[in-house]
Amino acid sequence: MQYNFMNDYNECAHERILEAIVKANREQDNSYGLDTRCEKARALIQMQLGGANSAVHFLVGGTQTNTTIIAAALRPHQGVVAASTGHINHHESGAIESTGHKVLAIPSADGKISAEQIESLVTAHYTDSTAEHMVQPGMVYLSHPTELGTVYSKAELTAISAVCKKYGMPLYIDGARLGCAFAAAGNDLTLADLAKLTSAFSIGGTKLGALFGEALVLNDDGLKKDFRYLLKQHGGMLAKGRLLGIQFETLFTDGLYFEIAKHEVSLAQKLTEGIRARGYQFLVESPTNQVFPIFPKTLIQSIGERFGYAFWQGYDETSDAIRFCTSWATPPEQIDALLEAIPYKK
Amino acid sequence: MQYNFMNDYNECAHERILEAIVKANREQDNSYGLDTRCEKARALIQMQLGGANSAVHFLVGGTQTNTTIIAAALRPHQGVVAASTGHINHHESGAIESTGHKVLAIPSADGKISAEQIESLVTAHYTDSTAEHMVQPGMVYLSHPTELGTVYSKAELTAISAVCKKYGMPLYIDGARLGCAFAAAGNDLTLADLAKLTSAFSIGGTKLGALFGEALVLNDDGLKKDFRYLLKQHGGMLAKGRLLGIQFETLFTDGLYFEIAKHEVSLAQKLTEGIRARGYQFLVESPTNQVFPIFPKTLIQSIGERFGYAFWQGYDETSDAIRFCTSWATPPEQIDALLEAIPYKK
Amino acid sequence: MQYNFMNDYNECAHERILEAIVKANREQDNSYGLDTRCEKARALIQMQLGGANSAVHFLVGGTQTNTTIIAAALRPHQGVVAASTGHINHHESGAIESTGHKVLAIPSADGKISAEQIESLVTAHYTDSTAEHMVQPGMVYLSHPTELGTVYSKAELTAISAVCKKYGMPLYIDGARLGCAFAAAGNDLTLADLAKLTSAFSIGGTKLGALFGEALVLNDDGLKKDFRYLLKQHGGMLAKGRLLGIQFETLFTDGLYFEIAKHEVSLAQKLTEGIRARGYQFLVESPTNQVFPIFPKTLIQSIGERFGYAFWQGYDETSDAIRFCTSWATPPEQIDALLEAIPYKK
Amino acid sequence: MQYNFMNDYNECAHERILEAIVKANREQDNSYGLDTRCEKARALIQMQLGGANSAVHFLVGGTQTNTTIIAAALRPHQGVVAASTGHINHHESGAIESTGHKVLAIPSADGKISAEQIESLVTAHYTDSTAEHMVQPGMVYLSHPTELGTVYSKAELTAISAVCKKYGMPLYIDGARLGCAFAAAGNDLTLADLAKLTSAFSIGGTKLGALFGEALVLNDDGLKKDFRYLLKQHGGMLAKGRLLGIQFETLFTDGLYFEIAKHEVSLAQKLTEGIRARGYQFLVESPTNQVFPIFPKTLIQSIGERFGYAFWQGYDETSDAIRFCTSWATPPEQIDALLEAIPYKK
Repeated sequence: MQYNFMNDYNECAHERILEAIVKANREQDNSYGLDTRCEKARALIQMQLGGANSAVHFLVGGTQTNTTIIAAALRPHQGVVAASTGHINHHESGAIESTGHKVLAIPSADGKISAEQIESLVTAHYTDSTAEHMVQPGMVYLSHPTELGTVYSKAELTAISAVCKKYGMPLYIDGARLGCAFAAAGNDLTLADLAKLTSAFSIGGTKLGALFGEALVLNDDGLKKDFRYLLKQHGGMLAKGRLLGIQFETLFTDGLYFEIAKHEVSLAQKLTEGIRARGYQFLVESPTNQVFPIFPKTLIQSIGERFGYAFWQGYDETSDAIRFCTSWATPPEQIDALLEAIPYKK
Repeated sequence: MQYNFMNDYNECAHERILEAIVKANREQDNSYGLDTRCEKARALIQMQLGGANSAVHFLVGGTQTNTTIIAAALRPHQGVVAASTGHINHHESGAIESTGHKVLAIPSADGKISAEQIESLVTAHYTDSTAEHMVQPGMVYLSHPTELGTVYSKAELTAISAVCKKYGMPLYIDGARLGCAFAAAGNDLTLADLAKLTSAFSIGGTKLGALFGEALVLNDDGLKKDFRYLLKQHGGMLAKGRLLGIQFETLFTDGLYFEIAKHEVSLAQKLTEGIRARGYQFLVESPTNQVFPIFPKTLIQSIGERFGYAFWQGYDETSDAIRFCTSWATPPEQIDALLEAIPYKK
Repeated sequence: MQYNFMNDYNECAHERILEAIVKANREQDNSYGLDTRCEKARALIQMQLGGANSAVHFLVGGTQTNTTIIAAALRPHQGVVAASTGHINHHESGAIESTGHKVLAIPSADGKISAEQIESLVTAHYTDSTAEHMVQPGMVYLSHPTELGTVYSKAELTAISAVCKKYGMPLYIDGARLGCAFAAAGNDLTLADLAKLTSAFSIGGTKLGALFGEALVLNDDGLKKDFRYLLKQHGGMLAKGRLLGIQFETLFTDGLYFEIAKHEVSLAQKLTEGIRARGYQFLVESPTNQVFPIFPKTLIQSIGERFGYAFWQGYDETSDAIRFCTSWATPPEQIDALLEAIPYKK
Repeated sequence: MQYNFMNDYNECAHERILEAIVKANREQDNSYGLDTRCEKARALIQMQLGGANSAVHFLVGGTQTNTTIIAAALRPHQGVVAASTGHINHHESGAIESTGHKVLAIPSADGKISAEQIESLVTAHYTDSTAEHMVQPGMVYLSHPTELGTVYSKAELTAISAVCKKYGMPLYIDGARLGCAFAAAGNDLTLADLAKLTSAFSIGGTKLGALFGEALVLNDDGLKKDFRYLLKQHGGMLAKGRLLGIQFETLFTDGLYFEIAKHEVSLAQKLTEGIRARGYQFLVESPTNQVFPIFPKTLIQSIGERFGYAFWQGYDETSDAIRFCTSWATPPEQIDALLEAIPYKK
């Protein structure tokens, strides 16, 4: 295969990260996230939070991060509100349910849900005379960017945040690809905004040039207490925790995290424009590093001979929607090569 | 209030049951379901199963029964397929999820799901290249009658049973109102059929004249092993278990269970015919003991001054769907009175 | 068998309870504990709580009661401190663990644990540098009377309560046989004391003349919120909830609950004195309705031909400890008959 | 601090591992453990299993590995038998209980349990007339080496394996430091023996020179089915799974894993002999890479000024037991320096 666009974790890590790990290799340090490198990484992230008094933890992966924060925030009779397309509803092998909680799914075509939809679900619950027989909406989960590459605006997020506060529900953002949201055209959100508008959010490393790892930012005081017990219980406490510290320290030094995001998004948008110019439509308009063109099945087959992609969903009898992803390592020339493989629609 | 049609558990128990309890009161017997009365009740039920080698357990309530059998049947990565309207999806405060399992809901308007829908869900799962990231469909839950009063035919159930066997999924029927299904016009199913077509099913007592209690019939050998441990763990093992035995012994002596069901269904159908004759429509055609008329809101208000009902759902600007239930104790004359309170539509 | 002393649930219910149920049988009432009879029972119990602003719920059984309150009180990383002999540690088929929580057992020979033992366990936890890798003690469970029939004094309970408050741990008392503690010689505790000293406690009905049922008294405000959701989730919400209301209403009218307890305890103590007079020792000195004599195995065999008992544990090569229980229905003359069957030790 | 002997994860990874990661960095590969490197590592491990048809999975950490295999093996009413000192009983923040299962602890002073102890626990369960009210022993967990550095002999393990087979309980070995057991004097076990004697075992990387990671070897067919679903659910499926593959490929090439173990154990045994020669005793005789001397508190303080150690437990008024660990990176000269800091006992 010439190049694999299947996802954004087909290569390993940005070289600056590897260099930092190699350099620190024989330095002795504390374990389980209590080391000097996690401390530095924590401080670097906290500096971006506009003065918020947030706690920052580092976890190995996204499923763990989502499961741990949700298990920490909910009481046993509560569920988590999410888009039907949300990762926790669809793609984590029941990890959320394994901790005892239902995902209260709101149907979504583009991966997003709105303040209105959330409020409508919550009021429907509390006005039902049999509410006590149903799962209580206990928190809200958003992914940003969503699984379909779409993003929330500051106005949208502010409205959702207000609904969550009104009903006493923590708001959590899964930022597995968070950097790409900041790199999207028209983005008007910052890390400091997220610290103000959410109860907790994650900053994903895996899909933005790290070997692995998520930073979890806890803004609500209620979520901070005893959180390390929960980390340990869910297998999120890495013995050689400095590995996470070193990576996030590197990502948040000299803006590397944002630089990688810009690389991914600009290449994906170049690809988007090229495909659009060739006359094809998209399943959804994604301003980030995922591209969802609708192609004739015959074209998909010919592309597949040289380039990797992810099948997304059937579209009609003769065409399917597929996904291309760019990564920290995607060479610009492969975008050109891929576009060359896509003929102009007649 | 003149009479409350809100549900089928507004009165206590059929007098024959109370008499049997009173009579046995000071007889000493074993505890936790190992008593002589549970044994008799078990034998009476087994006699109706067409020779099936089924185990029969008695539990206090429906939530427990559903939770225990589902927790017993599934492995941790599996979920239970159910209609979106199913009791376990909607009305058990997350009891299923509290044992770690997702409810895989199939949209349903009339409370039923079909063999085709189930097979389609299962094949969609196994043909997805990311199946391992999703909850595996591990068993199928049907309610019969459904929460909307509808019932399965023998042909429908046979088709569903075949799909379940094909994919190695236990089939469980929640028979909270099972008797009413047998009393429905056109019913072609028997207890013996259920023993043959399902892995497990429950025979609900609460809504058919018992104080409380469900008989759980286990047909698959794999489900029988160690089941009493699970009963105890889920709080389903009553110390004075004979209370359950006496009730089911009474219900299955001289056909009382079926007689009560006939009483409930015939009154509900009389009510249905009366409402239809008066020109009103129904949210769903229910052949059992629940009736779902669509009434003008003004009519609902005037009915509510004398009769209890359950609000079901909004229908349009001027009308709602409500539910009337008949019980073992409903006096026929109250059906007449209720019908008198409903004017002919102009 | 002449009479079975195996446990205190071998007969059904006090006749006054049955009469009340029979009398109310066709009265229509609300369901799920929102009925008029639960309301009355609630008020009768609250009158005994010395003005405490406690919530009272009614549940079907003890395993449910323990599981529900513990699941409600703990966060996911916390465990419940209990005597090694405690019902939740030993005899509920892992119900507590099934909700995700470890039982932190303190070794106990007589069923009781002390304020010192609890404080020692808690301080050992918090002074361990790896505390975050261990289960945090999150609440304390006592049974009163214990599984060995022993009871706490007001001084002991006050000391335990103080330790629990000091470390922010809810204190819960499992009162499956609570009445018997009040009937014990030397008892200096009241329901009002329990309301003041504990976060929650249960008043068991099953072993004190009810058909079934436990009243759960919640004293801490933090535990009251949304408790009915948890009741439902754990299968503790009976459709015909009035059955529980009627029973507790009867038990708390004219002091029936305390009268039954007095009956049970006085007969058990008469048995104890008779056995002691005959020269035998006891595994533990129980002032309530359970008696634990150590008998030669040959004697046990001969007793067993006419009377039921529970084998408790081996004692030495020639003798075992067994248990006799008295119930609401035990006839005094059977105590005499049993004593006659026990020869004076030479 | 001159050198930290606190644990065996104070440095990162053996340089050969880092080199392999750096070399493969931009190679595109599949994700979630389906990559070419996991495949190679799997094959290398399988070659050591004496022809056993075992499945091999790679997980990020030990808590996950233990939690996932235990959740996979047990039914809801079962618990896992372990030494009271076992990691799962003591040091995983309730991870096992969080999946619903009790740890059935057998008291152990040296970290080991015997076939006799296990059989005695199991037969006590099944001969108890109230067995159904207790947690059923469902599998056995051993750590090898144990948390106290001790190891099982082939005879001991064979006896335990036989008991487990007799009672149908899977036997699982937590091999977080497995290499060190093979490097211990007198070891008579091989990987092939473990494949034959156990249902599953783990090969720990973290404490033997890897950045992180555990290989989980599944020998019983029943455990293999759908295991990747469980991996994902428990957060054990790393997106860039090749990181685990590369590490285990390197460790099992040219015997590096065993070489690192030999390094750790030989240095720890040199330290042991030096401490013994100086006249001190040990809490437990450990033949692996952990050393547990009993030192006067004054000596511990002076050692602590230059060397890291883990406090283990109080011993008497004037002395404590502490732990020294050697790692893949421990320089031999630091053993000499540490020994120089320990005076000969007078």
